[in-house]
Amino acid sequence: LRRGVPEVIYCQGKTTTQVVEITRHMLKSGNNVMGTRADLKTFHEVQLIAPDAKYYEPARIFAVQQEEVLKNEGIIAVVTAGTSDIPVAEEAAVTAELFGNPVERLYDVGVAGIHRLLMNMKVIQSARVIIVVAGMEGALASVVGGLVDKPVVAVPTSIGYGANFHGLSALLAMLNSCAGGVSVVNIDNGFGAAYVAHQINRLGEKGE
Amino acid sequence: LRRGVPEVIYCQGKTTTQVVEITRHMLKSGNNVMGTRADLKTFHEVQLIAPDAKYYEPARIFAVQQEEVLKNEGIIAVVTAGTSDIPVAEEAAVTAELFGNPVERLYDVGVAGIHRLLMNMKVIQSARVIIVVAGMEGALASVVGGLVDKPVVAVPTSIGYGANFHGLSALLAMLNSCAGGVSVVNIDNGFGAAYVAHQINRLGEKGE
Amino acid sequence: LRRGVPEVIYCQGKTTTQVVEITRHMLKSGNNVMGTRADLKTFHEVQLIAPDAKYYEPARIFAVQQEEVLKNEGIIAVVTAGTSDIPVAEEAAVTAELFGNPVERLYDVGVAGIHRLLMNMKVIQSARVIIVVAGMEGALASVVGGLVDKPVVAVPTSIGYGANFHGLSALLAMLNSCAGGVSVVNIDNGFGAAYVAHQINRLGEKGE
Amino acid sequence: LRRGVPEVIYCQGKTTTQVVEITRHMLKSGNNVMGTRADLKTFHEVQLIAPDAKYYEPARIFAVQQEEVLKNEGIIAVVTAGTSDIPVAEEAAVTAELFGNPVERLYDVGVAGIHRLLMNMKVIQSARVIIVVAGMEGALASVVGGLVDKPVVAVPTSIGYGANFHGLSALLAMLNSCAGGVSVVNIDNGFGAAYVAHQINRLGEKGE
Amino acid sequence: LRRGVPEVIYCQGKTTTQVVEITRHMLKSGNNVMGTRADLKTFHEVQLIAPDAKYYEPARIFAVQQEEVLKNEGIIAVVTAGTSDIPVAEEAAVTAELFGNPVERLYDVGVAGIHRLLMNMKVIQSARVIIVVAGMEGALASVVGGLVDKPVVAVPTSIGYGANFHGLSALLAMLNSCAGGVSVVNIDNGFGAAYVAHQINRLGEKGE
Amino acid sequence: LRRGVPEVIYCQGKTTTQVVEITRHMLKSGNNVMGTRADLKTFHEVQLIAPDAKYYEPARIFAVQQEEVLKNEGIIAVVTAGTSDIPVAEEAAVTAELFGNPVERLYDVGVAGIHRLLMNMKVIQSARVIIVVAGMEGALASVVGGLVDKPVVAVPTSIGYGANFHGLSALLAMLNSCAGGVSVVNIDNGFGAAYVAHQINRLGEKGE
Amino acid sequence: LRRGVPEVIYCQGKTTTQVVEITRHMLKSGNNVMGTRADLKTFHEVQLIAPDAKYYEPARIFAVQQEEVLKNEGIIAVVTAGTSDIPVAEEAAVTAELFGNPVERLYDVGVAGIHRLLMNMKVIQSARVIIVVAGMEGALASVVGGLVDKPVVAVPTSIGYGANFHGLSALLAMLNSCAGGVSVVNIDNGFGAAYVAHQINRLGEKGE
Amino acid sequence: LRRGVPEVIYCQGKTTTQVVEITRHMLKSGNNVMGTRADLKTFHEVQLIAPDAKYYEPARIFAVQQEEVLKNEGIIAVVTAGTSDIPVAEEAAVTAELFGNPVERLYDVGVAGIHRLLMNMKVIQSARVIIVVAGMEGALASVVGGLVDKPVVAVPTSIGYGANFHGLSALLAMLNSCAGGVSVVNIDNGFGAAYVAHQINRLGEKGE
Ligand SMILES: Nc1ncnc2c1ncn2[C@@H]1O[C@H](COP(=O)(O)O)[C@@H](O)[C@H]1O
Ligand SMILES: Nc1ncnc2c1ncn2[C@@H]1O[C@H](COP(=O)(O)O)[C@@H](O)[C@H]1O
Ligand SMILES: Nc1ncnc2c1ncn2[C@@H]1O[C@H](COP(=O)(O)O)[C@@H](O)[C@H]1O
Ligand SMILES: Nc1ncnc2c1ncn2[C@@H]1O[C@H](COP(=O)(O)O)[C@@H](O)[C@H]1O
Ligand SMILES: [Mg+2]
Ligand SMILES: [Mg+2]
Ligand SMILES: [Mg+2]
Ligand SMILES: [Mg+2]
Ligand SMILES: [Mg+2]
Ligand SMILES: [Mg+2]
Ligand SMILES: [Mg+2]
Ligand SMILES: [Mg+2]
Repeated sequence: LRRGVPEVIYCQGKTTTQVVEITRHMLKSGNNVMGTRADLKTFHEVQLIAPDAKYYEPARIFAVQQEEVLKNEGIIAVVTAGTSDIPVAEEAAVTAELFGNPVERLYDVGVAGIHRLLMNMKVIQSARVIIVVAGMEGALASVVGGLVDKPVVAVPTSIGYGANFHGLSALLAMLNSCAGGVSVVNIDNGFGAAYVAHQINRLGEKGE
Repeated sequence: LRRGVPEVIYCQGKTTTQVVEITRHMLKSGNNVMGTRADLKTFHEVQLIAPDAKYYEPARIFAVQQEEVLKNEGIIAVVTAGTSDIPVAEEAAVTAELFGNPVERLYDVGVAGIHRLLMNMKVIQSARVIIVVAGMEGALASVVGGLVDKPVVAVPTSIGYGANFHGLSALLAMLNSCAGGVSVVNIDNGFGAAYVAHQINRLGEKGE
Repeated sequence: LRRGVPEVIYCQGKTTTQVVEITRHMLKSGNNVMGTRADLKTFHEVQLIAPDAKYYEPARIFAVQQEEVLKNEGIIAVVTAGTSDIPVAEEAAVTAELFGNPVERLYDVGVAGIHRLLMNMKVIQSARVIIVVAGMEGALASVVGGLVDKPVVAVPTSIGYGANFHGLSALLAMLNSCAGGVSVVNIDNGFGAAYVAHQINRLGEKGE
Repeated sequence: LRRGVPEVIYCQGKTTTQVVEITRHMLKSGNNVMGTRADLKTFHEVQLIAPDAKYYEPARIFAVQQEEVLKNEGIIAVVTAGTSDIPVAEEAAVTAELFGNPVERLYDVGVAGIHRLLMNMKVIQSARVIIVVAGMEGALASVVGGLVDKPVVAVPTSIGYGANFHGLSALLAMLNSCAGGVSVVNIDNGFGAAYVAHQINRLGEKGE
Repeated sequence: LRRGVPEVIYCQGKTTTQVVEITRHMLKSGNNVMGTRADLKTFHEVQLIAPDAKYYEPARIFAVQQEEVLKNEGIIAVVTAGTSDIPVAEEAAVTAELFGNPVERLYDVGVAGIHRLLMNMKVIQSARVIIVVAGMEGALASVVGGLVDKPVVAVPTSIGYGANFHGLSALLAMLNSCAGGVSVVNIDNGFGAAYVAHQINRLGEKGE
Repeated sequence: LRRGVPEVIYCQGKTTTQVVEITRHMLKSGNNVMGTRADLKTFHEVQLIAPDAKYYEPARIFAVQQEEVLKNEGIIAVVTAGTSDIPVAEEAAVTAELFGNPVERLYDVGVAGIHRLLMNMKVIQSARVIIVVAGMEGALASVVGGLVDKPVVAVPTSIGYGANFHGLSALLAMLNSCAGGVSVVNIDNGFGAAYVAHQINRLGEKGE
Repeated sequence: LRRGVPEVIYCQGKTTTQVVEITRHMLKSGNNVMGTRADLKTFHEVQLIAPDAKYYEPARIFAVQQEEVLKNEGIIAVVTAGTSDIPVAEEAAVTAELFGNPVERLYDVGVAGIHRLLMNMKVIQSARVIIVVAGMEGALASVVGGLVDKPVVAVPTSIGYGANFHGLSALLAMLNSCAGGVSVVNIDNGFGAAYVAHQINRLGEKGE
Repeated sequence: LRRGVPEVIYCQGKTTTQVVEITRHMLKSGNNVMGTRADLKTFHEVQLIAPDAKYYEPARIFAVQQEEVLKNEGIIAVVTAGTSDIPVAEEAAVTAELFGNPVERLYDVGVAGIHRLLMNMKVIQSARVIIVVAGMEGALASVVGGLVDKPVVAVPTSIGYGANFHGLSALLAMLNSCAGGVSVVNIDNGFGAAYVAHQINRLGEKGE
C-alpha cells in the first residue's frame, strides 16, 4: 500500500553508530530507507553497509533505495521566501521526491519583491499541493494562500535574528494566516511538510 | 468551480449592523453566505433580510443557502478529546458540511481513555481527512496521526486552565507531534481546519 | 513652529473629570486640543466646556480647534489589511489630519487578496509616507514596504485570536520585515504612527 | 532509616576537583555516594580515590557503594516515548536502582505507534509506580496515566526542536494531562523523578 | 477495586443542565458522584435530582454519596502558604476526603514566617503524603520537601499579581525545587493533587 | 532615482563562496555593492574579484563602489547608550554613509549619565533624523525622543544579560516609548535603521 | 522596636467579612492596622468596628491608628513618570507615611520631558531614599539612578498597552538598569517599595 | 564624598585592549579602579600597566587600589542557597569589600535544608544589609526576608536547567516574595546587589 515509501531515521541526537545500526536493521526488511538531518560523516558510515546510498547535501538527507517507489502524477511545489530558507526547503523537496512525488522548486520569491512571485504563478498553479518555506515575518504563506485555491502547507524557518526568536515570528504569522487553506508544521520541519503534502497529493491520484 | 461554497463572514469584532450589511451585499451576487462566531442576536437580525437563514447553535454559525452546493463523496471525520471541545468541533463540522462534505463526528474520545478511541477506529478509517480537536495536552492529534495514514488537521483549543495558557499547551504539543501527517491551524480555529480539510477532500473526488 | 499642532490627552485610564480639567487647562493657552481613546460620554462632558468640540467616532478622538493648523502638502496614506483594523487606522488618520496632513485611506487590502492592493497602488504611490495597519500575521507591512521606496510606519493591531497573543504575531512579523524602510510602533498605537508620519511628512515640505 | 540510600552530588557546574573533594568527604561517613551529570573524566578522577566506583555511561552517573542498600519489592517502571529520551530515562532508572528499587525499562513506545505500548502493558501493570519520560508533545504521560490506576511521575525532556522550545511543549502537555494520577518534575530531571518514585514505592513495602 | 471512589464531573465550562444530566446518568450506575468547580446554582439544580447531595462551599465541590467509600488509614496533609490559597487547598482536601482519606489541614504557614511552619511539624510528620498549596513565590514546597522524607505533591496557585503571571512564578519555582521528593500538578489543580496523593496513600495501606 | 545606493548582501548564514558569487553578479550591473555581517575572511575573498573593496571593521561591512552616490545634505545622527552598542551603531552609520548621508556619531551618552547627553545636544539638533542605539533598558530612545521634534529611529541591541533576554528588554522599552516620534526596528538591526533614516532624510532634500 | 508600624492586611481576594474579622483581631493587640487594595465598601465596614479609621482614596488604603508611630527624620521621595502611575505611587507614599516617614511627592516627571525632572532635583536631593514609579518603558528609574548617589527602589507599573504586556516592559527595563543603586519590586507593588524604603530610611536615623 | 569607591569597568564584551586602555585612563585620575567579569588573561594584561593589581578569581574581578577606601562599620552579609551560586556571591562580596564594607559570607544554606540556615542566624543578624543569592526556585530570599527586619537585596542566579529558563524561575520567585523588605536586581548581577547594599549600609554609618 505504501509501496516504496522509505522508512525514515531522524539522525539528529543519534550517534553515527546508532544510525548505521538502525539503517542496517531497516534494510533487512527490503524497504527503502532514508535519514534526515544527517551529516556527511554519517553518510560515509552508512555507505560502508549500503554502497548505493545517496547523499543530498543541501537537504542533509541520505537515502538507500531497494525497491521502486510508486509514482504520483500530481506536482508538489516547494516555494521559499529567501535563499537562507533553502536547506529546509530541500529537506521538504527531497523527501517529497523520495516518497514518489514530482517536485517543482521556486526559491527566493519573498514578499519584499512580490512581482517575482506573481511572475512565477505558473509553477504554483501547476501544483496540486504547495509547501511554503519562510522565516523572518513568514508572510509568504498568506500571500500564496490567497492566490491559490489549493492546500498550502506552511513551514516556518528559524532564519532571522533578534525579535525572530528562533522562528517564533514566522510560526505565529503562519498560524494567524488570514488566507484560507494554510496549515502549519513545526519550525524548520521540512520533512513533516513533505509528509503531509505527500498524503494529500496521493488523494488526487486516480484509482486511490 | 467553487460552486456553492459559501462566502464567509467572520462576525467577531463586527457590529450586528455591519454583519447584516455585508450579508445583504454578498447575497446579491447569488452566492451562499455563512457567518462564523455569530451570536443568536446577530442571527435574528440576519433573518430579517434572509428569512431562510439557519442557525447552528453550538457551532455559532448562521448560513443562507441560495444555490446548491457541489457535494463531495469523501468523508471528513471530526474528532474531539473532550466535551468542552465540542463548540470548536461543531464550527469545523458545520463549515465542512456547508462546503459540501459529508461529516462523521466522534466526540469525547480523549487519550485518558484510549480504548474509547480504539473501539471507534471504523469512523476514523471511513474518512479521507480527519480533523482532531483537542485542548489541554492536545495529545489526541499524535495518537490519531499514528493510527492512520491520512492527513490529520489538528485544531488546538483554549480549553483548560493554568499552565494551559489559553491553548498554548495544546498548540505546542500538536506542532511537535511525533506522528507523520499532522498539520496545525490556529487555536480554536475550527473554521480554518474545515477549509483545509475541504480542499484536501476535493482532491480525492473523481473528475477533479 | 509647531503651529496648530494640538496638545494631546491620552484618555484611557483617566476619569471623565480629569479629562475635562486637563482640557480646560490646555485650552487656556490658546492651543488646539485633542483626546485619544475617548468614549462618547467623555466627549459630551468636554462639549460642555468647549461647545465646538468634534468627535470622530471610529477613531475615538475628540478635538477642539482654536487656531488654524499649518497645512502640509505631502499625503499620508493609511492602509489596513482588514475591516477590523479600521478603528486603529482611524486613530492614525484623524490624528494625521488634525496635525495638518492630507490623508488617503485605503482599507481592507490585506495580503489574502493581493490583487486588491496591487490595483490600488496609485493611492499608495501618491503618498509621501505610508502607515500600514494590520493584525493577525501582519504581512501587509512587508508587502507594501517591498512595493514602494518610501518610509512605511507599521502598526500591529491586536485583531485576531489564539496564537495571535493580543497582537504579538503581527508585532513580531513587522519587526522582522524583510522589506527595507519599515519601522514599527506599539500594538494598536495609531496615534504614535501618525505622530511619526507627520514628522517625516513635514521634512518634505518646502521651506522647512 | 534511609539505609543505603546514597548521598548525591549534582556534578554539573562543579569542577572535577570539587566533585572529588565532596566525594571524599561523603565517603568518610560510611554512606554510599553517587554523582549525577558526571562525565567520564570526572569518573576517572573519582576512581583514583574510590577504586570500586562504577560508571553508568548512558545515565552519566557514577556510584560508590560502601554499604548494602535496603531493597524494595515493588517495581518501578521507566517508560520512554523515543530513543532520544533514553539518557534521561537511564538517569531515572539507575538512580532508582541505586536507591534499592527493581526497575523495568520499556523504551521507545511513544504514542505515534500506540500498539507497541498496548502490547507491553504487562510491564507497566507489574509496576507499583511508573516514570514516563517523553519529549516533543509529551503525550505518553496522559496515555499511560489513562491506562493505569497508579501514580505516574512524568519527566518532560528537551528532545525536539523549533516549537518544542527546549522542553516547554512536553512540560506544558504533562502539566495539562487530562488523565488522573500524573504529576510532573522538571525538564530532563530523571534523578528527581526517581527520587519521587522511590519515596512512593517504599510506602508499598510491608512493615514500613 | 476503586470501591466508593466517586466519578468526577469537571463543571467549569459546562451548563447547569449538562452537569445535571451527567450526574443523573452517573448516579444510575450506583456509584458516588462529585462535581468540581461547581457554583451554588449548579448545586441547587443537582439537589433536585439528588436530595442528599452535599455542597462544600470553599472547595466549590458537590458530592452525592450512594455507597460507602473504602477508608484509608494513612493521613494526607494539606498545607497552604497563605489564606488566599485556601479555595485550592479545600478542593484538594475535600476531594481527598471523598476518596476515603483522612485529611489534616495546616493553612497559612508560608515561608515569610517560617516558625509557624516549624511549630506545626507534627501535623506534617503524621501524614503519609503532603499536598503543598502555594502561590506567589511558591517557596513552601521546597521548604516542606526539605523537612520531610515523604512524597510532596505541589500545587502552584494563581494567587498574586504582576510578575506572578497567573501562577507562572509559583509553577516554575516548584518545578525547580532543590528539595527531593517534590512533584508538581497544574496551577490551581487541587483536584489533581488529591488524586495523586490518594493513589500514593493507598499504596501504604495494609493488604493492598 | 536611487542613484548610487548600493545593492545589499546579508552575509550571515551564507558561505563565503555564495557571497563572492552574488557580489560578482551584482557588480556586473554597474551598481555599487555592500555586504553586511561580513567577517574579514569574506572580505578578503571579495577583494580578489573587487580589489577596490573596502572593509569597515567595527561595522562588519564591506563595500565596492563603482559609481558616485547621490549626496544628501541633511545629517543623520547616530547615538549610542554604551560602548558595547558601537558595532550595531557602526552598521547603521556606515550604511547611512554608503547610501549618501553625512553622519554624526555620538557614542556612550546613556541615561545613567544624562548630563553627557545634554551637553551634546548640538550634535543631535544639527541632524534631520536620529538613530538611537541602546541595549539593556533602552531608555535613551525615550529621552532623545522627548528632547527633539524630529523622527527618532530606535534600534534595540542584545547587549546585556539575564532579564535582558537577548534584547527583549530594550525592544519592549522602545516600543512603549512615552515620547512622540519614536519608531523601532528589529534588535541589532543597524542596517534597517539606516535604511529608514535614509528614506526619511531624502524627503528633506530640495528638489525631491 | 517596630513601635507603631502598623500590621498590614492585603485585602485583594479577601471578602469584606474576612477583612473586618482580621482587622478586629489585630486591633485587640493594641497595634495600628492598615489594609491595602481596599475598596470604599470595605472601608465602610471597617469603620463600623473602628470609627476612627481613615481612608486614603487614591492609595486604596484604610488605616486605624491606636498608638503613636515612631517618626523618622529622613525623607522618602516618591517620583512618578506619568499621572496614571499615581495610584501605585500613593500606595507607596501613604504606606511610607503610616510607617512614620516624611514623604515628598514628585509626580509626572517622566523622561519624555526630562527638563521637568531636572528642574525638580532639589526634591530628590532632599531625600534619603527614592521610590521611582513608572510604567510603559520604565526609563525614569535609570535616569534618577544616574542622577543621585542614593538607594532607588523602582516600582514598574502595569500602565500601558500592547507590547507593555501588563507591566513586563517596565519591569525588564528596571531590572536592566545601567545606573547603579537601583533595585526592583513587583509590578504595581507600591506597598512593597515603601516597606523596603522604610527599612532603609530607618538605618539613617540617629540612635538606631 | 565617595572617597575610595573604585571606578568600575564592566569587562564582558570588551576586548582586552579596550579594558587596559580604560583602566590606564581611569588610573590617571588617582581613583581606585576595578573590573568585573574579567578573565585571567585580561588581568595579566592589566598587571603590565598596574603591577599592584589584584585578581579575585571566583569573583572574576580585578582591582587596582591607589587610595584608601572609607571604611563602613555595618556588616553586609552575603548568603547563598547552593555552592553553584558562589561565583555570583563572590562578585557581590568582593565588590562590597572594595567599596569599603566588612562582609560576612554564609554559603550553601538553601531551603532544602532549612536547619542549616536557622543554625546560622547569628551571621545574618550581625549584618545591616543582607544579599541573598539563589538560583533554581529562589526561595531563600523569602525565607531570609521573613526572618529578619532588615533590607534584603535578592540576586536571582541562572543556576539550574529546564524550567529554570536561565534564571527566570528564581527571578519571578524573588519578585513575588511574600516577605517584606525584599528588592531584586538582575539575574546574576552580584555587582549590582553590592552597589545597592553599599549605598544602604552607608546610611547607617554615624556622621553621614
Ligand atoms: N540530575 C539531577 N537533577 C536535579 N537534581 C539533582 C540531580 N542530581 C542531584 N540532584 C540534587 O542535587 C543535590 C545536590 O546538590 P549539590 O549540593 O549542589 O551537589 C542532591 O541532594 C539532589 O537533591
Ligand atoms: N478541578 C479539576 N481540575 C482538573 N481536572 C479535573 C478537575 N475536576 C475533574 N477533573 C478531571 O476531569 C475529568 C472529568 O472531565 P469531564 O468529563 O469533562 O467532566 C475527571 O475524570 C477528572 O480527571
Ligand atoms: N544587517 C542586516 N539586517 C537586516 N537586513 C539586512 C541586513 N543586511 C541586509 N539586509 C537586507 O537583506 C536583503 C538581502 O538579503 P539576501 O537576499 O538574503 O542577501 C537586503 O536587500 C536588505 O534589505
Ligand atoms: N557585573 C556587572 N553587572 C552589571 N553592571 C555592571 C557590572 N559591572 C559593572 N557594571 C556597571 O557598568 C558600568 C560600567 O560600564 P562600562 O562603561 O560599559 O564599563 C559601571 O559603572 C557599573 O555601573
Ligand atoms: Mg487559498
Ligand atoms: Mg499518520
Ligand atoms: Mg521599501
Ligand atoms: Mg491513571
Ligand atoms: Mg524531601
Ligand atoms: Mg520627539
Ligand atoms: Mg545612582
Ligand atoms: Mg523582612
